[in-house]
Amino acid sequence: MEATLLAAADAAAAHTLPLFRTGLAIDNKLTTGFDPVTEADKGAEKVIRAIIADAFPDHAVIGEEWGTSGESPYTWIIDPVDGTRAFISGAPVWGTLIGFAVDGVAKAGIMSQPFIGETFIAVPGHSRYERGGLTQPNRVSGLTDLAPARVFTTTPKLFNTPSLAAKWHAVEGATRLQRFGMDCYGYALLASGHADLVIEPHLNTYDIAALVPIIREAGGAIACWDGSEPTAGGNVVAAASQALLDKTLELINAA
Amino acid sequence: MEATLLAAADAAAAHTLPLFRTGLAIDNKLTTGFDPVTEADKGAEKVIRAIIADAFPDHAVIGEEWGTSGESPYTWIIDPVDGTRAFISGAPVWGTLIGFAVDGVAKAGIMSQPFIGETFIAVPGHSRYERGGLTQPNRVSGLTDLAPARVFTTTPKLFNTPSLAAKWHAVEGATRLQRFGMDCYGYALLASGHADLVIEPHLNTYDIAALVPIIREAGGAIACWDGSEPTAGGNVVAAASQALLDKTLELINAA
Repeated sequence: MEATLLAAADAAAAHTLPLFRTGLAIDNKLTTGFDPVTEADKGAEKVIRAIIADAFPDHAVIGEEWGTSGESPYTWIIDPVDGTRAFISGAPVWGTLIGFAVDGVAKAGIMSQPFIGETFIAVPGHSRYERGGLTQPNRVSGLTDLAPARVFTTTPKLFNTPSLAAKWHAVEGATRLQRFGMDCYGYALLASGHADLVIEPHLNTYDIAALVPIIREAGGAIACWDGSEPTAGGNVVAAASQALLDKTLELINAA
Repeated sequence: MEATLLAAADAAAAHTLPLFRTGLAIDNKLTTGFDPVTEADKGAEKVIRAIIADAFPDHAVIGEEWGTSGESPYTWIIDPVDGTRAFISGAPVWGTLIGFAVDGVAKAGIMSQPFIGETFIAVPGHSRYERGGLTQPNRVSGLTDLAPARVFTTTPKLFNTPSLAAKWHAVEGATRLQRFGMDCYGYALLASGHADLVIEPHLNTYDIAALVPIIREAGGAIACWDGSEPTAGGNVVAAASQALLDKTLELINAA
């Protein structure tokens, strides 16, 4: 499974990197027709699916671009380019996400940022970071209090109703530092101990499934706002400890 | 001058990189006293100043950490770590900035992001990007219209008065894509053609001086909101063309 995750992420990079920071992305803004982001997405997901089908022909697959195929308690969940807006503006904080779930709970996953050359990967019992020759375990900060927390969300505009906005403002008021613009990269930084909290509404399963085991196997906690399993998506909080997750859920559910 | 910029940025990296993504940054959040960001800043600025003093002993220097020294029409302007909040949350979008100004107008500069290994550098007549073995000219997108523009600002919270907020909302409403969280990295992406507009209030000279020639020598335009020279800081707009700058200034001055 680990070999499949790594091989699939590598193969995806051959489709995403050639379209990152190219004139194609710029031309496309000014015309209609060819969409380089979708091209990168579609091509990458295709090679990921081929590698999975080869290794595990009986497993189900859910992908952002090519939908659902197969039926099985074992499901691979793919977002070939998470962070489209980062991708089309040259910011190297998008990632290729591939998760593996058993009975609806993600157990293994990879987040690959091929421009920087970083990989965050988890299998049961193990979450690690790789870059070039460097390999090190992912380990959350372990922070348990809201006040000193570094919080990530992709943009405050995600909180697009008064009720959602109130929840974001509560988190903003209770924490030390808020950062925007990170997509999947924020969750990866949480798993590796550099951020303490990520909070986002409206996620799809392919936005989050791969990140669930990367965070849990690094000692972090992640759940939907009602406390339920987040592998299927929804409104999600990830935290550097169970205590911090509990405090955050209490805060946002009271807001 | 080019050799001095490159040597100074390299020397700075030896002080910043060892403190990036380390436990030090995390520990510091929970205690008081030792501040790793300030340590990185101070150490890096010290070596930058030493290299400049060695090459150009008669020039003036302005730095974020160690203040102003000397008096000369030739001034070096340093921000050893631009993007402190990115630095302490593990996001590789901070940079070391060194500008060189003649009579108050920046003519050369460097933005170095040593974790990714990227350098954006300009001298009169020339702006380029370097990473590993790759060297290529910086060239703005040349976009002239607001509607398709990709806009960067560090955070919407910078627009912290009703009047400033109205200006940001006007830009937000007139453009296609807005991204937050980039600091100096957004200006570098503009110079290399991946973003079209950066708008930020309240800048200091060391936040912007190095970026002015990187943008201008790549074909971009940059000014304060009143149209004046931005090397000294203030409220600044950078754009992928003079036409786009003019339209943006008209928009924000009417808002």
